Amino acid sequence: MAASTWSISASDKSKLIEAAFEAKEHAYAKYSKFRVGAALLTTDGQIIKGANIENASYGGTICAERTALVKAVSEGITSFTSLAVVTDVASALSPCGICRQFIREFCAQKMPILLVPADYADRVAKGEEDGILETSIAELLPHSFGPEDLERPRQPS
Amino acid sequence: MAASTWSISASDKSKLIEAAFEAKEHAYAKYSKFRVGAALLTTDGQIIKGANIENASYGGTICAERTALVKAVSEGITSFTSLAVVTDVASALSPCGICRQFIREFCAQKMPILLVPADYADRVAKGEEDGILETSIAELLPHSFGPEDLERPRQPS
Amino acid sequence: MAASTWSISASDKSKLIEAAFEAKEHAYAKYSKFRVGAALLTTDGQIIKGANIENASYGGTICAERTALVKAVSEGITSFTSLAVVTDVASALSPCGICRQFIREFCAQKMPILLVPADYADRVAKGEEDGILETSIAELLPHSFGPEDLERPRQPS
Amino acid sequence: MAASTWSISASDKSKLIEAAFEAKEHAYAKYSKFRVGAALLTTDGQIIKGANIENASYGGTICAERTALVKAVSEGITSFTSLAVVTDVASALSPCGICRQFIREFCAQKMPILLVPADYADRVAKGEEDGILETSIAELLPHSFGPEDLERPRQPS
Ligand SMILES: [Zn+2]
Ligand SMILES: [Zn+2]
Ligand SMILES: [Zn+2]
Ligand SMILES: [Zn+2]
Repeated sequence: MAASTWSISASDKSKLIEAAFEAKEHAYAKYSKFRVGAALLTTDGQIIKGANIENASYGGTICAERTALVKAVSEGITSFTSLAVVTDVASALSPCGICRQFIREFCAQKMPILLVPADYADRVAKGEEDGILETSIAELLPHSFGPEDLERPRQPS
Repeated sequence: MAASTWSISASDKSKLIEAAFEAKEHAYAKYSKFRVGAALLTTDGQIIKGANIENASYGGTICAERTALVKAVSEGITSFTSLAVVTDVASALSPCGICRQFIREFCAQKMPILLVPADYADRVAKGEEDGILETSIAELLPHSFGPEDLERPRQPS
Repeated sequence: MAASTWSISASDKSKLIEAAFEAKEHAYAKYSKFRVGAALLTTDGQIIKGANIENASYGGTICAERTALVKAVSEGITSFTSLAVVTDVASALSPCGICRQFIREFCAQKMPILLVPADYADRVAKGEEDGILETSIAELLPHSFGPEDLERPRQPS
Repeated sequence: MAASTWSISASDKSKLIEAAFEAKEHAYAKYSKFRVGAALLTTDGQIIKGANIENASYGGTICAERTALVKAVSEGITSFTSLAVVTDVASALSPCGICRQFIREFCAQKMPILLVPADYADRVAKGEEDGILETSIAELLPHSFGPEDLERPRQPS
């Protein structure tokens, strides 16, 4: 699916993936035991890490992708070039719908989103396919509801 | 896109759309002024209506689609055959990512989801195209994260 | 603490508590295994039941109290006289903060909220204290942030 | 109410309040236009800033207090000594219930929470009372539901 996303350099990709693995170490996954790490690459070359932070209410839980985004936006950083996400599962798992909607608010439709399997380093070491699913919010949230929809003219009721 | 969803009878479709419009009347859209109505058709032929219920915290807001689903599930109803959603905008608008994730938990991948424009009745009266986008959770939430992903074997950290 | 809430008749109280236990039967607590039931008494004497409906995203979870409230409000019912909540734990447990904020939007500060232990029926049968904590949103969410705070004049930035 | 919280030095208090005002500058309050800033003081003397980051879905919105907390926790910082919160309103406004529940997960019951009016600097310059409400999660979320409640023995259903 790479054709539908921007290109990302091999070096950026490698750094971003490593950061997502590091981010996962700080997951607070007390209830699900399902750790997730995310890393955002900003237009000016910074990497911002997020992890899932769960809550006893369950509903208050904030995922890794949203954690990374609020860290960036609350520092005034709103321009991003890619996002990587990793879990403890040995296949490429995808963001939940809440995170897709949150990504939609701040990231371009074609920004690369790299879904990285937990055994990525092993795969690479063995010379196998890396198992990454490269996608985008255009693909993950088609017909998306976005900020501009709230601006549309409304019919009188 | 109808090919990728189940079929729904013209009569069911018509009743479901009417119910979604009625549901919208009870929206509590105090902050966005953006009213949404949803109607779920259950396997045993009941129609369950939902509207968006907003909250001063903004983050506490519950959309129409989720309202309809929790109404059903909390009465022990967990089998659905279609969903219709309508807003005050004269085009087919799509559920937010939070609702897509919630629909994913309870509805089949190919269950028809009808996104209905606010001027649907006018369009039909004028003999125009009805403007409905018929879609499904398979289309709206590709590569979805779901309950079974939480069951997958995890790598030791 | 009853002095700070409205009074509720013994018969209403009994019906409401029974409804909260029934509501719990439809909890969808797939992830936490922590079932919660809620029952709302409306001004016109209806009882509306809610249960917690969890989600694989965790963050998408909707608690029993919010389920009961959106069921009511989406049917045009916005006036309530009491709420009962029960879990599977043999002591009075309290709503999470998300639900307190949601209750704040629709219920009066002094409306009785009955937190019912799972062994309530046993306690009553044995002639013991019923173990109910009767409280209110005034007590559970002091200095609350509410709809009127969004209307306050704001300083130029 | 200071008696029920820990003490905080005048110098820390002053730095924390200043940081909360700075944090507010990066609010993404596109929908509510209601900007909020928060600042957390960590045990090792760092200050971590948060702002509210809203979302077109409304329900996806993350408040300033939660932004500050996930920034900290996702960097491995989980020990805090105080929190300050400021809005654009010239009086002390309080966290929403969602944030209270999130603070409950990570902060001590008696940790000082300073609710700062937008005109704080003016008040101080004029030699008036500073208008700060000093509170704590013990006061803001009484009878709280917390992580340990999920561990309690449950009755068979
Ligand atoms: Zn997520
Ligand atoms: Zn929604
Ligand atoms: Zn709750
Ligand atoms: Zn909040």
